[in-house]
Amino acid sequence: MRETRLDTARIRAARPMIDPMFLDTPLFPCPALEPHLGCAVSVKLETANPVRSFKARGTELVASLLADGGARAVVCASAGNLGQALAWSGRRRGLDVTVVAPRSAPAAKLDRIRALDAGLELVDGDFDLARARAAAMAGHDGIRLVEDSLDVETCEGAATIGLELAGAVPSYDAVLIALGGGALATGVGHVLKELAPGVEVICVQPLGAPAMTRSWRRRRVVTTGPTRTIADGVAGRRPIPVVLDDLLLVADDAVLVREESIVAGLRMLLDHAGLVVEPSAALGVAAILEDRERFAGRHVVTIVCGANVDMDAYRRWIGAPIPPPP
Amino acid sequence: MRETRLDTARIRAARPMIDPMFLDTPLFPCPALEPHLGCAVSVKLETANPVRSFKARGTELVASLLADGGARAVVCASAGNLGQALAWSGRRRGLDVTVVAPRSAPAAKLDRIRALDAGLELVDGDFDLARARAAAMAGHDGIRLVEDSLDVETCEGAATIGLELAGAVPSYDAVLIALGGGALATGVGHVLKELAPGVEVICVQPLGAPAMTRSWRRRRVVTTGPTRTIADGVAGRRPIPVVLDDLLLVADDAVLVREESIVAGLRMLLDHAGLVVEPSAALGVAAILEDRERFAGRHVVTIVCGANVDMDAYRRWIGAPIPPPP
Repeated sequence: MRETRLDTARIRAARPMIDPMFLDTPLFPCPALEPHLGCAVSVKLETANPVRSFKARGTELVASLLADGGARAVVCASAGNLGQALAWSGRRRGLDVTVVAPRSAPAAKLDRIRALDAGLELVDGDFDLARARAAAMAGHDGIRLVEDSLDVETCEGAATIGLELAGAVPSYDAVLIALGGGALATGVGHVLKELAPGVEVICVQPLGAPAMTRSWRRRRVVTTGPTRTIADGVAGRRPIPVVLDDLLLVADDAVLVREESIVAGLRMLLDHAGLVVEPSAALGVAAILEDRERFAGRHVVTIVCGANVDMDAYRRWIGAPIPPPP
Repeated sequence: MRETRLDTARIRAARPMIDPMFLDTPLFPCPALEPHLGCAVSVKLETANPVRSFKARGTELVASLLADGGARAVVCASAGNLGQALAWSGRRRGLDVTVVAPRSAPAAKLDRIRALDAGLELVDGDFDLARARAAAMAGHDGIRLVEDSLDVETCEGAATIGLELAGAVPSYDAVLIALGGGALATGVGHVLKELAPGVEVICVQPLGAPAMTRSWRRRRVVTTGPTRTIADGVAGRRPIPVVLDDLLLVADDAVLVREESIVAGLRMLLDHAGLVVEPSAALGVAAILEDRERFAGRHVVTIVCGANVDMDAYRRWIGAPIPPPP
């Protein structure tokens, strides 16, 4: 079997390159969720930071290395959290950041990228077209293209969450991780399997965007047709082979959840934990809701990975309506 | 002038007595709030913990000292955050906790106190009657009565927030602190005035519960009639003289805000920071909204001190309606 690309010593060395604001995030039990879920649930909260997702752990690492190496500019394709995080990390280090995004991306996310002074280039097409355009720009201008999950820094940045979880007391039985491209799951999974091997690593993906889960189950890349999920943060259809290889080494399970469970998870996190999150951050609670027996009486950690949610869409999902601002 | 009751060396020594889960809470800029408020706003988030308020910093200290001293039981009067925090801190240290509360207190808060295994005794009357009943129980049973703001541990526990703010980089110009009984304001204010004297310490109270602010302005205790505010966490009408004395030493200003500004603050924290909070936690944003000129272009920290909010009431306040759970 192939060795993983990830390296725990390098992950430890990454911590000082990441602004402390993004590290040592809260990990806390939510006792009010327990009666509704039948198990003890602790939240690892990755949204209490200026970009409201865990992605800055990776972009801080990328931008630090680039700035140390004398780079001036960086580009990525993203319609969401990666673009916003790279814009933040690059700006603080004097890097010119360009984000290429589909014109159809949520306006709220595009606005936040612009507000962080990144160049935003819109393409008339899907993420794959944005990625091709970003790659072409990188090649033409001779600048770094940041590719989520493929670039090991994005996985190792996310893996610093694993260091924090592995050091946590009291310990827990399982950790639920949103699965998209795989940076978060491979990163956190790698560290846990090395430092806390008794913890079950469970990846969760929407039924409407199941490519990586199906690939994990078949142990080879499976691509899918168009995704159908509100969890835009994890909606991919073309798993990256080397990331799948890394995931195969560390995930104990990968499960698929229905859209209505994701919405129920959003609702529970709002009503019983006071957290407004994006759909991908509710995947863990959705997984518990779909298989209560599996988790009954156990202590489960769910990583609340992002909160960049369009409030109008959020209002619709949770049933209707926090009314719009006056 | 009288010396303060608070002691920075003792506050530093308090940190190891507090579960790390309640310490080193997130402090992060919310760039999405900036265009709406005309100033840079950072949030010190005290709600990402199992009791969803800053009060556990104080109750951890109280309960540690009690347990170390061989105590078996403790009682307090509270309809809200103090009772919940003391229930949490006491349970983890094997203390019997009794909370005396008015029967009219929000059901959600009483439920949370019960769920944490505290004895809950309800009285038919207001907080003053609950306090008298708690004092009588303490006297009769020979156990410790915890009194918020009067007991210096509650102030010095809260003051550990000040240590974290004073150590924060980059620095900021002003900190906005919800003012109720005064534990939070005197605690944080004391440390900031000692360690970061250039930071303006601004207390914020609702116009409908102005007793401490009026007392601060007149430099003597002023009591008021019944309070009228949704910010139940800061609704007191009888300031404690020694706490006022401490506050007079450290507050640069105390301002009063209207109920509609508190609601607007709740709304902004929801829409632009993704935070569901209780009204007292929105007082800082309310103060900015009422005096934009004062804060224009400055960097302001607001302490988001609690999120124990009845969701039905919250839905009403913010305009109507996240619909109730199915």
